[in-house]
Amino acid sequence: MAIYQATASAPVNIACIKYWGKRDTKLILPTNSSLSVTLDQDHLRSTTTARADPSFERDRLWLNGTEEEIKDVGRLATCIKEMKRIRREVVEAKDPQAPKLSTFPVHIASHNNFPTAAGLASSASGFAALVSALAALYELPSSPSELSVIARQGSGSACRSLFGGFVAWEMGSAADGHDSLAVEVAPQSHWPEMHALICVVSDDKKGTSSTSGMQRTVETSALLQHRIKEVVPARMAEITAAIKARDFDAFARVTMADSNQFHAVALDTEPPIFYMNDVSRAIIALVVEYNRVALEKTGKRKAAYTFDAGPNAVIYAPAENMREIVSLIVRYFPQKDAFKDVFGLFGVAGVGEGGLVEGFDERVAKRFETGAVKGLIHTRVGDGPRRLAAEEALLGGDGKPL
Amino acid sequence: MAIYQATASAPVNIACIKYWGKRDTKLILPTNSSLSVTLDQDHLRSTTTARADPSFERDRLWLNGTEEEIKDVGRLATCIKEMKRIRREVVEAKDPQAPKLSTFPVHIASHNNFPTAAGLASSASGFAALVSALAALYELPSSPSELSVIARQGSGSACRSLFGGFVAWEMGSAADGHDSLAVEVAPQSHWPEMHALICVVSDDKKGTSSTSGMQRTVETSALLQHRIKEVVPARMAEITAAIKARDFDAFARVTMADSNQFHAVALDTEPPIFYMNDVSRAIIALVVEYNRVALEKTGKRKAAYTFDAGPNAVIYAPAENMREIVSLIVRYFPQKDAFKDVFGLFGVAGVGEGGLVEGFDERVAKRFETGAVKGLIHTRVGDGPRRLAAEEALLGGDGKPL
Repeated sequence: MAIYQATASAPVNIACIKYWGKRDTKLILPTNSSLSVTLDQDHLRSTTTARADPSFERDRLWLNGTEEEIKDVGRLATCIKEMKRIRREVVEAKDPQAPKLSTFPVHIASHNNFPTAAGLASSASGFAALVSALAALYELPSSPSELSVIARQGSGSACRSLFGGFVAWEMGSAADGHDSLAVEVAPQSHWPEMHALICVVSDDKKGTSSTSGMQRTVETSALLQHRIKEVVPARMAEITAAIKARDFDAFARVTMADSNQFHAVALDTEPPIFYMNDVSRAIIALVVEYNRVALEKTGKRKAAYTFDAGPNAVIYAPAENMREIVSLIVRYFPQKDAFKDVFGLFGVAGVGEGGLVEGFDERVAKRFETGAVKGLIHTRVGDGPRRLAAEEALLGGDGKPL
Repeated sequence: MAIYQATASAPVNIACIKYWGKRDTKLILPTNSSLSVTLDQDHLRSTTTARADPSFERDRLWLNGTEEEIKDVGRLATCIKEMKRIRREVVEAKDPQAPKLSTFPVHIASHNNFPTAAGLASSASGFAALVSALAALYELPSSPSELSVIARQGSGSACRSLFGGFVAWEMGSAADGHDSLAVEVAPQSHWPEMHALICVVSDDKKGTSSTSGMQRTVETSALLQHRIKEVVPARMAEITAAIKARDFDAFARVTMADSNQFHAVALDTEPPIFYMNDVSRAIIALVVEYNRVALEKTGKRKAAYTFDAGPNAVIYAPAENMREIVSLIVRYFPQKDAFKDVFGLFGVAGVGEGGLVEGFDERVAKRFETGAVKGLIHTRVGDGPRRLAAEEALLGGDGKPL
């Protein structure tokens, strides 16, 4: 008897032009286009195995080994149902020999290789891996952009994890959302020197979920409509040009401005939403000062911070600057655990108490106690979803998680 | 020989609709109108004595006992020069008998009854007191609005301290600034129940001065123009109506929204400007939760926070709510010194570890260590500048500070 099973992995992405606001909450259609960098799956990924079997009782899903309920009208159910529909319409309806996989229940096991405690949203990589695994299982001829339309209905920003490199989510205009999809702006190979340092920031405050937060902003911010109509379209064009030209200075300027503006409209919400805390502010002060010195010397910025719906910073920079940046962060935010130096920036001695770059005003921030930044992850731009070999499967012979 | 001397005091004001941005930095003409509540001089005031004497060598000024340089092209010199000009044109030119005080050098002594460490801007009350003392010395028939035009050129928000009660600074449109002045929206007596609690917040970060910060916002924020053109005019009308109707709920809604939006455009600046810190955020969370409970019970808010260019909170509320509000703040921010209970809210026992209002979710903020809020000042809406008796003078017989 044939076994119908496939495994895929998908990357995390971190936006430079932020998605904040839905015009359709059911279909997850955004109020503005957005753009992100896909991070390397060698460091951060979701892996998903999907299996279709007529003997299964119903669709089931396990996340990191624990079964999650698939609610009838939920986003998971929507994605699985849509993928089955495409299988039926695109494969089974055209090839009478094709097995009727769309009629079989599926078992799905998914795993994130980064701890939930890292504070990284796993929904983007998770839904991208789900859709990729089902597309492989169902042998769909769909393009990544077509699959992104399905992933989008699971979690908006998941659509951008269907591509590697630099990815735009075009907001589209159709009521049914078929043109609200991800497109590749440039592949990983275009600008592989783009690195990223994720600073995982401790927070003792329960944050506002992005789903509810963004709708409050849509309903109450007096500034959001201006951002949507006037600011974002220009920034999308500007950062696309910067990426195509590998112009890091322009990339950094637009990325930081848009992170700031996203948090500005969150603050302009009633009641106001704060995602950044004093540690986040200090990281901004360090990057601003690092860039001030660089601008004075060369007229160009050397790093760009961006913050999503939480206190964690992601610092984008060309690979050649990462040694200075890691040294800077570690100086102000002493680490409990040794820095995981995956790119061998520091050699065997590890990160020392290095000097600051010349001209850096060390008073721009205070030194925090150990643990204020509780972890650092150094990664870089990466590729899109990968189909994995059978050995990588997360489901055992019994259709249950291994 | 006659002594020409006068003493006046002037109040602090805290804006509900924020002033942020100049269209003319020399004349201090704002990019938008603003509106404030004048606070009670019985608690917070600047007092200034001005004396004109032909035997003085030059204009001199002492602030809290220390002489300050009067720079030729500075704001102080501008205010003194303008007041002398009005004396000359309005009094001396019309009455040949009037002593030519405009030709005499002046000595000025000024004192704030609140410590600089309190983090309260003293420039508003200081320039209002300066202009008021000189107007008394020169026996000018000028109205408070006319004097506000001069005070504005010392420090923008000082113009609003020329009136008590509820005061609008109308931005005006003339290039020479003659119509950019303060007007009374309602006197203190219209709504004397309007109380205020100033929470002085510790900060280990050097802030951006409002003068340089607001110009950076004007130059770089993509959102400020929308605020200026679309948002503020509607809010000025809305809060004016709320004040006239003594509608605290509407007053609170607009006040909090405008504080948030001011800080939002500061954050939308390049590089971003942060004035609020984690303590400020926690105070917001407490007021939001206090209002959530009130809204659920009665459909009306009971308190309004507002933050100027620093981490300090000012909480406006009807007098009847202040006992609950002080208890709430003290619970989360233990005080080193006993609360100065000027209105006798708590009787001889003082502020105890009172219970929260019913339904309040105490998890909205953590309890901070003693000193995070380093002082509380309970005050209320107050009157405008006062002419003081000769006994209150700050200058001695020798024309030097006492």
